[in-house]
Amino acid sequence: MNPSSCRRIVVIGGVAAGMKTACRLRRLDATAEITVIDRSRDISYGACPLPYYIAGLYDDLSEVRRTPAGALRDEGFFANIKGFTALTGCEALRIDRDQHQVWLRRLDDGSEQALAYDQLVLATGNEPLVPPLPGNDLDGVLPLKTMEQAARIDKLVATAHSAVIVGGGLIGLEMAEALRLRGLQVTLLEMKDQVLATALDFGMASLVHRELRAKGVNLRLAEPVRRFEGQGRVEAVITDQGRYPADLVLIAIGVRPAVQLARAAGLELGPTGAIAVNEQMQTSDPAIYAAGDCAEATDRLSGKKVYVPLGSTANKQGRVVANNLAGQTEAFAGILGSLAVKVFDLNIGRTGLSAEDAQLIGLEPVSLVTASPDIAHLYPGNKPIVIKLTADRASRRLLGAQVVGSGVVDKRVDVVATALTFGATIDQLANIDLCYAPPYAGAMDALHQAANALRNKLDGLADSLSAAAVQEKLASGEELLLLDVRSPAEYDEVRLPGATLLPLGVLRHKLAELPQDRLIVPFCKVSLRGFEAQLILQQAGFTNVRYLEGGIAAWPYELER
Amino acid sequence: MNPSSCRRIVVIGGVAAGMKTACRLRRLDATAEITVIDRSRDISYGACPLPYYIAGLYDDLSEVRRTPAGALRDEGFFANIKGFTALTGCEALRIDRDQHQVWLRRLDDGSEQALAYDQLVLATGNEPLVPPLPGNDLDGVLPLKTMEQAARIDKLVATAHSAVIVGGGLIGLEMAEALRLRGLQVTLLEMKDQVLATALDFGMASLVHRELRAKGVNLRLAEPVRRFEGQGRVEAVITDQGRYPADLVLIAIGVRPAVQLARAAGLELGPTGAIAVNEQMQTSDPAIYAAGDCAEATDRLSGKKVYVPLGSTANKQGRVVANNLAGQTEAFAGILGSLAVKVFDLNIGRTGLSAEDAQLIGLEPVSLVTASPDIAHLYPGNKPIVIKLTADRASRRLLGAQVVGSGVVDKRVDVVATALTFGATIDQLANIDLCYAPPYAGAMDALHQAANALRNKLDGLADSLSAAAVQEKLASGEELLLLDVRSPAEYDEVRLPGATLLPLGVLRHKLAELPQDRLIVPFCKVSLRGFEAQLILQQAGFTNVRYLEGGIAAWPYELER
Repeated sequence: MNPSSCRRIVVIGGVAAGMKTACRLRRLDATAEITVIDRSRDISYGACPLPYYIAGLYDDLSEVRRTPAGALRDEGFFANIKGFTALTGCEALRIDRDQHQVWLRRLDDGSEQALAYDQLVLATGNEPLVPPLPGNDLDGVLPLKTMEQAARIDKLVATAHSAVIVGGGLIGLEMAEALRLRGLQVTLLEMKDQVLATALDFGMASLVHRELRAKGVNLRLAEPVRRFEGQGRVEAVITDQGRYPADLVLIAIGVRPAVQLARAAGLELGPTGAIAVNEQMQTSDPAIYAAGDCAEATDRLSGKKVYVPLGSTANKQGRVVANNLAGQTEAFAGILGSLAVKVFDLNIGRTGLSAEDAQLIGLEPVSLVTASPDIAHLYPGNKPIVIKLTADRASRRLLGAQVVGSGVVDKRVDVVATALTFGATIDQLANIDLCYAPPYAGAMDALHQAANALRNKLDGLADSLSAAAVQEKLASGEELLLLDVRSPAEYDEVRLPGATLLPLGVLRHKLAELPQDRLIVPFCKVSLRGFEAQLILQQAGFTNVRYLEGGIAAWPYELER
Repeated sequence: MNPSSCRRIVVIGGVAAGMKTACRLRRLDATAEITVIDRSRDISYGACPLPYYIAGLYDDLSEVRRTPAGALRDEGFFANIKGFTALTGCEALRIDRDQHQVWLRRLDDGSEQALAYDQLVLATGNEPLVPPLPGNDLDGVLPLKTMEQAARIDKLVATAHSAVIVGGGLIGLEMAEALRLRGLQVTLLEMKDQVLATALDFGMASLVHRELRAKGVNLRLAEPVRRFEGQGRVEAVITDQGRYPADLVLIAIGVRPAVQLARAAGLELGPTGAIAVNEQMQTSDPAIYAAGDCAEATDRLSGKKVYVPLGSTANKQGRVVANNLAGQTEAFAGILGSLAVKVFDLNIGRTGLSAEDAQLIGLEPVSLVTASPDIAHLYPGNKPIVIKLTADRASRRLLGAQVVGSGVVDKRVDVVATALTFGATIDQLANIDLCYAPPYAGAMDALHQAANALRNKLDGLADSLSAAAVQEKLASGEELLLLDVRSPAEYDEVRLPGATLLPLGVLRHKLAELPQDRLIVPFCKVSLRGFEAQLILQQAGFTNVRYLEGGIAAWPYELER
């Protein structure tokens, strides 16, 4: 093999997208000269498992760089097993597009050299945002992105009593759990009035708020940080509302794409600030590709450019880049904004457009919240999940789903993501032949129930209000009758404050007792009976009846026990 | 409300499809006179949970008739809560289509009466097949379909030492687990050479065979029953190979549609023997609908009429019938043959066409088996799953999936079922934006890995053999080199009999040691490295190399430890 005759491929960034590109390309092309460069020695690590390392789920940080078979993915691994060169401790300084060269500096001796490429792949990832506030450089104030930071946090945790997390996004929430598991007092400060603001609607996020508080997290919403206090080492975080002692402050307010090299080289950036790419993941320079957290993606539903940096997307894009480098023409299909996160005993997932997203592109979204057991209600260990589905009124096209619960959430998100990929209507979703056995689903899966409930709403059969909407009406002082149609035994166990009990079995005989002059909101445990009560009342001539979506199971506010 | 002015709807059969029809119709139509009749007093029970009752997962058999809120679904429940009449203990004798009447006999007093209908719904369900063998009427030989049978089996189990299960279908397997949990010696006799013959290919079923045997089931394949022995009460089951003592014999060889009424009324039966229906679930008499286990369905992929009686389908069809009765025109979309079953610690699911099914309709199926952890390999508690995907060579359309493993199976089956519903290609499947976080999936989900592996095979990049195919070659005496490319430590732990160790890291340097004259079958734990070894060998000029699909994780035969 004569290297001089071979194509030279240089990949900048040796984590998810970069390594995927190089590994896949080697499988497709035995002769290309492939070099991956990375500033860090810690290449090919999993960033997503770092919170689990902090939580103590495994002992050795190097696990995040190991294959399932236990091999460390270091330079030797890539040379011997994967068949290409990984240059670590090697910073890319600039790209000379005219000369097709990348200038590098070796961090050990400071020496610089040029590396020639025929094609270049930018997989430079993201960089955590740090708030430009006084004290942000104190020791003990740091984000969690690198293995070094994980090791540092792990060390701080060993002696810390209290931690403040700034930001209620994915990493902030995972770290809230991790730090509680390690026994710390944890305050989570979120600037917005809800966590997971880009992923969940307020009502669904409220279920997460309840879980965080139940697990002892001091959750402070709509409370921006003003400064970090301490002498060299951080001691407290200051907001307008208070002072929160902290031996450790985790900065988790988000990330931005690492685009310095691309910008300096004159490559086009997109509206999101990430590197603009075409469907083949090519930048504005056809010899340069970009993939992973430094690149923008297209939302499959809205057609808009979006920035949703995730390892799942990075891996898919890396494969697409490699295929294109190998001479196949393959398009990256875009994303749906699908994501999942575990927060204590709650599973959380979402995909597609929110109602707000959908309105922005001119659709008329209709949403509905339902609550169901995740598997057959007769099978031991079933747990509730709350599903919010959104569809377009006119076309009945499914637009998105948000799912939260202690039961199995990811399955429903993935089914919806698949349905969204192919433009399914809500009617089609309701009839997919999903697999059924009691340990896995009800005969009507939770998702089928959710889809049928939304069809009822679209068809004008059901009229309903979400818990958030009911709470808003109550807060505004609107007089309404919260009508609990469950059994007395269920009522004794747990109640909505202010609700009136009238079991569904006697409702038909007690219609005269109900007021005609105000909104009646029937509900039950999950609101199947609430819906039936709405129909009975309407069939009896009551005109102002809307059942409570998801019933008590989806009610994120106070309950009486 | 004046009943004489109302439409009269009669539903024969008050379990899944019948009750769903009646409940849904009442929601759509406040005035129709709806009557459900059933021979049994045990209406609206869940048949699927009966094996779990036998297993002891809940104490009270009436649980299978209760709502999630605990209400017993009896005549009063349907009258007061659902708003229609359920006539139990009432056998439908015949249908007089000219007079639009059903003749009934009350089982308590033997009286007969005619019930007039404007529209009739047949939801007569299935009846278990009983083999026409000597002794099939002995006490203790029975199927499991009704609550009565469940109670009888439960009572027999209390004093039984050994049981024989005849048939390795869904109920047979669930009952094998249930009876082992209850401490019985269990022999399972299956006429065919594999269990789940209509659901799984032989190789995938072999994983189930291993699990059954590991859990102490005496699994006897290709061994038809000849007769049942005993004096009044069963004592043993006799085959050509042996005599199996049995205090209880569960007959689980399948079911047939209960179509006596329909046949006697001259309604058309389909090629499957079930009641022929159009898309609206109307029989050959437009005033008569059929739904659930008595009706045929259309396979969405092959377009063929099929008979796959399942509670999930019955519920969907019941809703479609009700919608049509209420004046909407709705088509039942057909089925994919999706199903799931838990057998001890193994989760099993499938959807779509097998390779054999696909060949029958003129396609050229290509299948591949992969093995992966079900969630991120770094996340504690991850477990293996084995996925067999099938796609059409020319169109690259996804055709079906079979998934077996101790990890999460149903999610992958449901994603494939959804993809199949919309005619996805294998390439589209590989790029669906499924939700990702380590507790739920790898960055490349097991399904993405499976899809990409099959794409590699379709593209000619990968060449592979299933475990079953390798086993066949070995059994036929073909000389081949089973090349284990794992690490020595992994090799020490578990080995394929006869395999040669040559770790992937040194493979490139030891090519001279390998034979050129015979098939080389590289493999590893899951065969990602096996695939890489195949590429290295091919790139080095070896022409006869096919990796072992799914590696050791998918190998259902003997392993050395």
